[in-house]
Amino acid sequence: MSEYILPLDLHDQIANTAYRHRGFTDEEAAYGASMAQSASWHGIKTHNLIKALKLDDLFGSQNKVSPGCVPGAKIQRLDTGSDRFLASQRWNANRKLGQAVAVEAIQTCMDLADRYGVGMVSVDQAFHYLWGGGYVMDAAEKGYIAYTNCTASLAEVVPFQGSFPTLGTNPHSWGFPTRETIGFPIVIDWATSTIATGRVEVFKREGRPLPVGSAVDKDGNPTTNPNNVAWLLPFGGHKGYSLALINELVAAMIGGSLPTIRSRPELQSDGEKIACNFFFQVIHPDALSCGAFAMGRNQSDNVAEVIRDVLGHGNKSSRLPGQIEHEAAKLSQSVDGLIFTEAEIDAIEQIALGCGTPFDRSLLRLLN
Amino acid sequence: MSEYILPLDLHDQIANTAYRHRGFTDEEAAYGASMAQSASWHGIKTHNLIKALKLDDLFGSQNKVSPGCVPGAKIQRLDTGSDRFLASQRWNANRKLGQAVAVEAIQTCMDLADRYGVGMVSVDQAFHYLWGGGYVMDAAEKGYIAYTNCTASLAEVVPFQGSFPTLGTNPHSWGFPTRETIGFPIVIDWATSTIATGRVEVFKREGRPLPVGSAVDKDGNPTTNPNNVAWLLPFGGHKGYSLALINELVAAMIGGSLPTIRSRPELQSDGEKIACNFFFQVIHPDALSCGAFAMGRNQSDNVAEVIRDVLGHGNKSSRLPGQIEHEAAKLSQSVDGLIFTEAEIDAIEQIALGCGTPFDRSLLRLLN
Repeated sequence: MSEYILPLDLHDQIANTAYRHRGFTDEEAAYGASMAQSASWHGIKTHNLIKALKLDDLFGSQNKVSPGCVPGAKIQRLDTGSDRFLASQRWNANRKLGQAVAVEAIQTCMDLADRYGVGMVSVDQAFHYLWGGGYVMDAAEKGYIAYTNCTASLAEVVPFQGSFPTLGTNPHSWGFPTRETIGFPIVIDWATSTIATGRVEVFKREGRPLPVGSAVDKDGNPTTNPNNVAWLLPFGGHKGYSLALINELVAAMIGGSLPTIRSRPELQSDGEKIACNFFFQVIHPDALSCGAFAMGRNQSDNVAEVIRDVLGHGNKSSRLPGQIEHEAAKLSQSVDGLIFTEAEIDAIEQIALGCGTPFDRSLLRLLN
Repeated sequence: MSEYILPLDLHDQIANTAYRHRGFTDEEAAYGASMAQSASWHGIKTHNLIKALKLDDLFGSQNKVSPGCVPGAKIQRLDTGSDRFLASQRWNANRKLGQAVAVEAIQTCMDLADRYGVGMVSVDQAFHYLWGGGYVMDAAEKGYIAYTNCTASLAEVVPFQGSFPTLGTNPHSWGFPTRETIGFPIVIDWATSTIATGRVEVFKREGRPLPVGSAVDKDGNPTTNPNNVAWLLPFGGHKGYSLALINELVAAMIGGSLPTIRSRPELQSDGEKIACNFFFQVIHPDALSCGAFAMGRNQSDNVAEVIRDVLGHGNKSSRLPGQIEHEAAKLSQSVDGLIFTEAEIDAIEQIALGCGTPFDRSLLRLLN
């Protein structure tokens, strides 16, 4: 399969133009371009520019019934410095582009963590932030422990021992500041479904059965035939189910509404809400440190020793979460560009042409 | 199988006497008795008084090589009001009884959350706190969102794609204040191994195979034969593995040392540490609320509607985390006592006799 190298500036130019063409502000377009670039740089195929604009088409600014994303929207900060809870903020995002909200929210959490050891931002009326791993990775690169969860757009996941999808694929993302320790930040970032919807398409194309326990058919019966998949199952039985439930509970406490009508204006009754919610939290590593590391180690060296122990003792095939992203980033660095398949390049060309940007294929190189 | 009802005061009298007999202070003994009672009240067979004292025998105050638990130890608080990070505290537990430390830590987190929206306590030099679910349940009953994790005593879990156990069964526990909403707090509380060590014994006794993917034999090969089990596997493949890793990373940042020597003084080299670590966090629900719930609902009613949606649509067999504990508590309430099997009663009798307390079996009633 041929893969192509897209120069960073060409990617960003197309992304910026596409966002501005949809009415987003220059600042929003820049956030959108930057997060899409970062996802592709780290090999995240499921959350690149193509996916971002597809989400905006389906649920966002281009949805004609009820746009889930509003270009130029302003974040309303419900807390000020004089408020009751000093380490936490509550924001009404007013359906602003998720990437713009998330970048600002994780930065605010870092500022709060500098003062209080821990900081958090809860967001109501949010629109899909694309790649949760990107925000916690960014905070981890800056030296913080970071966490985010959100409610996924659609309820596609059946609760443990249930038959009907009432939960989102509700991801959790954690980042740890281990660049100095092991050369890259540990980033844990996954959906609470066994597999993602996009992966079902891959199995379908390849004619392979799904892993047992991944999905159910339209009657709620387990299936491994990708052609019969109606809904997904949580990973790890009741444990993954409870992790998916956490996002719904946190969202419900922030201000989110029923999961089965989320992002579905056609099912919405008057007075209900259909937007997603975000939750962000950052911890300053010094706020955890009790300072008494064995053998006179500092905190970073101590983490390094623990990781060495976990991956030692013959556990040579074990890897760390974030390692795949790190290796993808090294490859992107070495070829000085973003790597896409031919089908993805075709999709990016369509995006470019759709907003009147010429797409000169001679600027691409083949990855060999 | 016969089950017996042990009166609460008899349970607590035996527990208090047993702890004091081991040299624990009256206050520590009361914490130990209270948490053991709460575990049994909620049907938690794996973390009752018998387990608590067995842990103290193996790793705690009764370990002759290196007592992991020190009766009467004082918690050293490394932060004061004037410190840098106002919403977080760091404690050196000096190997004090885990239950006493955990009850105080979660209370401190609640106090911090009242002021900052979120509060956290990180604990170094800790000894097993028995039942993590109990502390978050307590905070949830008082109206807070609570979380705790700890490093489990022994490395018994093999990393994803590894062959040697370098991770603890490292549990995570979350509590949500849903008593008003649904009649009980949602409590999510599980180990990151597919099954717990105690469950392997049950399968062995019953001659049943383990679930696929639960365990490996001494050569690191997968096995479902409980008699061949050497080590456990994380639940949910790489996802459960990453959750187990979180506890190790947080512990390493607090001050914990190598997981493979934890609680194993015989493997400890000079200058290394072998104690566990705790992490606690509490969030005030008002600090999450953006205040704009659909249909004029309040936060609690909104959570109720979301739960109704998740468990609706024909998902009649789905249950909520914490429901089993709630139903066990209702049963304990209805019989006005703690329910134990005959084998458990025998073990409790041994505990009583071992510290010179008469054990009058005529005080027990049979559960019918």
